[in-house]
Amino acid sequence: MGKLLRDVAIMGIGQTRFGEMWDLSFRILGIQAGMKAIKDANIESKLIDSLYIGNMSSGLFMDQEHISSMIIEEVGLTEAHVPATRVEAADASGALALRQAIFEIASGQSNVIVVGGAEKMTDVTSDVASDFIMAGADKAWEGLFGASLPSLFALMARKHMHDFGTTREQIASVAVKNHANGARNPFAQFQKEIDLDTVLNAPKIAEPLGVFDCFPVSDGAAALILADIDTAKEYCSEPIRITGSGQGSDTLSITNRSEITMFGSTIKASKQAYDMAGVSPSDIDVAEVHDSYTIAEIIAIEDLGFFPKGEGGRAVFEGETSLEGSIPVNTSGGLKARGHPFGATGIAQINEIVLQLRNKASGRQVKDARIGLAQNMGGTGGTSIVHILEVD
Amino acid sequence: MGKLLRDVAIMGIGQTRFGEMWDLSFRILGIQAGMKAIKDANIESKLIDSLYIGNMSSGLFMDQEHISSMIIEEVGLTEAHVPATRVEAADASGALALRQAIFEIASGQSNVIVVGGAEKMTDVTSDVASDFIMAGADKAWEGLFGASLPSLFALMARKHMHDFGTTREQIASVAVKNHANGARNPFAQFQKEIDLDTVLNAPKIAEPLGVFDCFPVSDGAAALILADIDTAKEYCSEPIRITGSGQGSDTLSITNRSEITMFGSTIKASKQAYDMAGVSPSDIDVAEVHDSYTIAEIIAIEDLGFFPKGEGGRAVFEGETSLEGSIPVNTSGGLKARGHPFGATGIAQINEIVLQLRNKASGRQVKDARIGLAQNMGGTGGTSIVHILEVD
Repeated sequence: MGKLLRDVAIMGIGQTRFGEMWDLSFRILGIQAGMKAIKDANIESKLIDSLYIGNMSSGLFMDQEHISSMIIEEVGLTEAHVPATRVEAADASGALALRQAIFEIASGQSNVIVVGGAEKMTDVTSDVASDFIMAGADKAWEGLFGASLPSLFALMARKHMHDFGTTREQIASVAVKNHANGARNPFAQFQKEIDLDTVLNAPKIAEPLGVFDCFPVSDGAAALILADIDTAKEYCSEPIRITGSGQGSDTLSITNRSEITMFGSTIKASKQAYDMAGVSPSDIDVAEVHDSYTIAEIIAIEDLGFFPKGEGGRAVFEGETSLEGSIPVNTSGGLKARGHPFGATGIAQINEIVLQLRNKASGRQVKDARIGLAQNMGGTGGTSIVHILEVD
Repeated sequence: MGKLLRDVAIMGIGQTRFGEMWDLSFRILGIQAGMKAIKDANIESKLIDSLYIGNMSSGLFMDQEHISSMIIEEVGLTEAHVPATRVEAADASGALALRQAIFEIASGQSNVIVVGGAEKMTDVTSDVASDFIMAGADKAWEGLFGASLPSLFALMARKHMHDFGTTREQIASVAVKNHANGARNPFAQFQKEIDLDTVLNAPKIAEPLGVFDCFPVSDGAAALILADIDTAKEYCSEPIRITGSGQGSDTLSITNRSEITMFGSTIKASKQAYDMAGVSPSDIDVAEVHDSYTIAEIIAIEDLGFFPKGEGGRAVFEGETSLEGSIPVNTSGGLKARGHPFGATGIAQINEIVLQLRNKASGRQVKDARIGLAQNMGGTGGTSIVHILEVD
């Protein structure tokens, strides 16, 4: 993989609160996030060359495809016929939108791009939502035989416990940490601390995972303004550089993988991102990772090289990934507490890292954060995308 | 819009026959097209840096999202965890996949990319298919009030007839020409000539449009191998350069447009593509345009600058866009006769232009074709994408 021919940076960020937003439509959520990002970047909208939107399934959840055009209409960018592009990789759609926008700027085609992610998931009943969510994993070969998304991650948890001695308490401690962080994030869906007993004694979804080991169903949108580094410096006093970007894929079904206690897609994506940025895992000051399920965070921090294989559970339990730990993970509250509107998550992760690198994360600020990483995953790991951000 | 920092070219093409493919699954269609393209490019699969797939609605038609990962699994590229990306812009998804792959190569990130488009639309009943197809236009503000996709294009036809004196016979002649071309294309869904009376006397779908004015519901896949020009020249004796790429958007609803006898998205996209390629409409030797409905082809050849506004109908009727005309359009048979599996169409258009520029289009070959253009549109024109291809 080659070096990008132009450097890119983030000029502005914005997001809605995540949660059950029954009074806000998909269109309104998207606009609110986008307008906040444009205001934060302090640019006029005529500067915008194109727009990207990450979304998993407007088709299933809203009976509407081609939402790129819908968003462009709603934000009033149709007079200039600004190109708009939707990308999809299940719940990695947000990070994928950012990655595609990076390519467009690095290619020389565009200078300023709005990158958004949005999903409206609570307008259907929860059993229907569960079915739609499974469309991000293998519906035909796994879903049809009764597997739900949490049950597939439960298999990974069991295998991780068996192979590495990871304990139920260690797994549960991911949720405790992320709720503690979410309690300090005004945009989080759940702003309430929980203790280990709450997680352990919660109703089971798919053993060993209980309700607090699983992401909530959420509505929400997040956006950012991306630009080439020269434009970013012209308009922005503190651009955040994107120095690394990597993407990997894997089988849609976990059935066809030789190992389920690691994500090959994450390992590939992170290696590519580290190489591009010229940094190593120990250089990362703060990270947002894809904790769709508690076990996924433990696997992620191992795959990303923060901890040796099998040590992820112990590390979380002992506080190494908490706000005061050696490598704070999911300071936003993660998918677990911030919420997980599928298409929005990847952009919300980036926004959290930008806040941390700007030293503007208030009650959850990581001291002296200079280099951050975000890892966003689709389904059961069929896609994984890693970005590395640095203070300019 | 800036110049691309690296030149790109097409090394290989492949497609399945389009039609009602009840014996072939989406996975199989995708693989068949991809493997043909890889064989045509004469490369080993280890050379592939990434993969793109254009698809409108695997969610609605197949209850499955995240098909990028499904395709990667099916073609066996998971060992290297090759990144795979799905893009969507209704029936412009194919061209959008190509455009994103162009950016990835031009950015310096990758050298060789498989770009595919696929859709499986005949596994649902036709009324359900009609409903899903409308998800590419505005479902909430137009579909809910009873508008179907053909009825929205019928409005455009009426207005074009009113404003410019375009006749029913002129509109119908698009279908006659495209069926004549399709009869010479072994991959076309309909390989049968029809006469003007057949089109005029066919059952009406939405007046003035009859069944022969409308695209058929189709299954199919198409693929191509894209590379930077240096790699392309290394492996390929006759690479076809992509010298222009443009994309424009417009309102999702036609209700909110000031004019419905032109597509602002196409005008924007073509201007950008012409500027990038440094050519003008009169330089184009052969074109594939988005004739989802006969009237759409007439509007397209005006928007692309092949004919003055209001002259499109006359030009088609008088044979100026037939195989022996001044600017042959839809030599493949177009969406009308080749068929229109939504995500595949944009790639099939490009493949037809490549065949023409290679002088390999046999019975439908345009003499001395050196520069070709393809225009692919989503829904009622919410997205339009134009590419210009040239013999190296």
